[in-house]
Amino acid sequence: MTRAIILGGSRGIGKAISDSLKLIEIDVFAASKNDIDTSNLNSVKKFLETHDQTDILILNTGGPEPKPFLTVTEKDWNKYHNQLFLGFCTILQNIKVNDGGYIFLISSSVIKEPNSKLIISSAYRAAFSEVFKVLSKEYAQNNISCINIAPGPINTDRTQELIKNVKEFEKTLPMKRLGEPEEIGNFVKGIIENNIKYLSGVTINFDGANSNYIF
Amino acid sequence: MTRAIILGGSRGIGKAISDSLKLIEIDVFAASKNDIDTSNLNSVKKFLETHDQTDILILNTGGPEPKPFLTVTEKDWNKYHNQLFLGFCTILQNIKVNDGGYIFLISSSVIKEPNSKLIISSAYRAAFSEVFKVLSKEYAQNNISCINIAPGPINTDRTQELIKNVKEFEKTLPMKRLGEPEEIGNFVKGIIENNIKYLSGVTINFDGANSNYIF
Amino acid sequence: MTRAIILGGSRGIGKAISDSLKLIEIDVFAASKNDIDTSNLNSVKKFLETHDQTDILILNTGGPEPKPFLTVTEKDWNKYHNQLFLGFCTILQNIKVNDGGYIFLISSSVIKEPNSKLIISSAYRAAFSEVFKVLSKEYAQNNISCINIAPGPINTDRTQELIKNVKEFEKTLPMKRLGEPEEIGNFVKGIIENNIKYLSGVTINFDGANSNYIF
Amino acid sequence: MTRAIILGGSRGIGKAISDSLKLIEIDVFAASKNDIDTSNLNSVKKFLETHDQTDILILNTGGPEPKPFLTVTEKDWNKYHNQLFLGFCTILQNIKVNDGGYIFLISSSVIKEPNSKLIISSAYRAAFSEVFKVLSKEYAQNNISCINIAPGPINTDRTQELIKNVKEFEKTLPMKRLGEPEEIGNFVKGIIENNIKYLSGVTINFDGANSNYIF
Repeated sequence: MTRAIILGGSRGIGKAISDSLKLIEIDVFAASKNDIDTSNLNSVKKFLETHDQTDILILNTGGPEPKPFLTVTEKDWNKYHNQLFLGFCTILQNIKVNDGGYIFLISSSVIKEPNSKLIISSAYRAAFSEVFKVLSKEYAQNNISCINIAPGPINTDRTQELIKNVKEFEKTLPMKRLGEPEEIGNFVKGIIENNIKYLSGVTINFDGANSNYIF
Repeated sequence: MTRAIILGGSRGIGKAISDSLKLIEIDVFAASKNDIDTSNLNSVKKFLETHDQTDILILNTGGPEPKPFLTVTEKDWNKYHNQLFLGFCTILQNIKVNDGGYIFLISSSVIKEPNSKLIISSAYRAAFSEVFKVLSKEYAQNNISCINIAPGPINTDRTQELIKNVKEFEKTLPMKRLGEPEEIGNFVKGIIENNIKYLSGVTINFDGANSNYIF
Repeated sequence: MTRAIILGGSRGIGKAISDSLKLIEIDVFAASKNDIDTSNLNSVKKFLETHDQTDILILNTGGPEPKPFLTVTEKDWNKYHNQLFLGFCTILQNIKVNDGGYIFLISSSVIKEPNSKLIISSAYRAAFSEVFKVLSKEYAQNNISCINIAPGPINTDRTQELIKNVKEFEKTLPMKRLGEPEEIGNFVKGIIENNIKYLSGVTINFDGANSNYIF
Repeated sequence: MTRAIILGGSRGIGKAISDSLKLIEIDVFAASKNDIDTSNLNSVKKFLETHDQTDILILNTGGPEPKPFLTVTEKDWNKYHNQLFLGFCTILQNIKVNDGGYIFLISSSVIKEPNSKLIISSAYRAAFSEVFKVLSKEYAQNNISCINIAPGPINTDRTQELIKNVKEFEKTLPMKRLGEPEEIGNFVKGIIENNIKYLSGVTINFDGANSNYIF
């Protein structure tokens, strides 16, 4: 039976992916922050002791609170360096993804269009996207597909917190609505259930035509 | 019943998309070059007389023979300007895509990494990708998703013609193989059958981790 | 003596480059629309009869009026296909740029962030940018540098026409002002007078920090 | 008198910039590793005690040895996180760049085309490029230009170390040679001496037409 480990699997996009994959008979371990806290490398290492292989891995974690650059402390930088970058590197250095498997990274549209409010997230998510791109070529040798999904405005608790007036904000979006976490969950499911392997090394904007950049 | 019009639907990637969509009970019109020749605007206009609306539209066409820049004639430029750009513009100016529908553009990885052999294709496919990006924001208002798929080396007749020694070439690829047209066909099917709408305005490399650019 | 041909050299950015290059003793031919009309291939060919070699070439031309996609006619497409793409291709196919020379393309920020108002310009300027990128590798063999400058909002007659209330618009820009044509002219001069050759195959946003995309 | 602080100013590209700026009567402080070691935040803070303002700031530092991903240790990640990212953030949080000034970041072509050998450098230099892009919009308000130069293969001691057979490597490059540090130095000089301010928020490939990506 195919096995999936989903980080940040208890809410938002992670939970939606978990729900979708369960529909196609995948044995899902939806990790919550109690299972693994990627901002804490000891927690990451402990998690890896009992979760050292999988067929499908979903690298997914929340980002920091918005914070202006001048007020970000050394402690903040280091915390989110762990949470958004080093924790994921540690996982990929230590987990075995089985041949023919998948690794999905749930990053953010801020990696392409960085944002002053989300400057920490822009920086470290971009950094990990570079690592993930490089590794996609190595994983390809074992027929493992690496897919970076960069969500724009999605209807999660976090977006509701970040944006003051969601109703007004939605009117400014091309589709006049936020994306639904289920759309990402089902997109991931569609790739896996159809066994699409040649989609790899790619960053996929998932933003309802909101971004302006040509690619 | 959902209706799809697939240009270049009689072979290669177009045929694979056609085959995949038929599996999910879509009423597919797989147009061949006899039905519509996008290098000939009269042919395009004639086609539009009887095909003036659809739920799903797949913009797909072959590219020119490799030709060094200095030998490309004015006639060549104008022919492929029609085939790769103006034909598609004419279609989008005249066809009605029904609300909640999809438009897929099958472009090429050369739009991001242009290629001296395929310089005509690089130019005009990029030009149309710009138009498609702009229009994605307008189509979004009617819940129509615009998805640009940029295939890398795919196992079609054309690739077999373009590349002298395919077996040797495959060894240089990260996945050690060409992509299969069916993977693109099934990817398109996966998006439609799962009703993924928020994926729009995006260009998706489909190249088995072959490209080097970060995004 | 070093010779430069500057298309669109009688006004705006072209004139500013002309003025700057004259300061460093370059023999400038600042072509006006009377000398060469790139929307008319016969005019282009005639120009090339008497201007068949240069040390420095500046490919520069105005763009079309803003026009919504649905109202662009076949005649419009073909006219601007000539003006923004095919005229430049014809020039590069027929002019000799001397070894150690420079070719500058003045394109537009819309090639990276296409714009519904300027959809024609977005498409064809991007198309030519693809050709220019490919050719940069060939010109490099003769130590000819190819530099694509993509201006954002610059203080030209055209910008004054395009934008209703320039004063208000300027307040929305990061630098609270339009760029000056002289800044582009002097930038080009700075590259040439310092004999910077390794800057080639590059697209340089020149937009006062206005674009949002990371690269 | 205009003042410049140049990090990594005692060799390679940093020294070349230093030499170029001295030619135009700029008061250059070319910091060596003895003056400031960006991998050590205490060293950075100490440096900032006596260097707390400048007109021109050049953020420049060497990168790590090539190291395969699986062998990079937590200590390595943290060291280069400091050296390539956090040290620069700390500087920008604490130094005053005078109105009308310049900040140049010397990054690397690996931020756009990441490299398995230089995976650490790809990651953290990209991360800082995100921060730098965001800040360019804020600095613009004080007429300070932020310019990210991304060098490709440049003739420095480091390149000589990284590449086994430089002569053979050069034959594979479009210009058949490495770039010279002086070209970057003089490019920076050309921008400053011509007072080009509207060039900001931009990443400039400086690679002799070597990269393949369209932008």
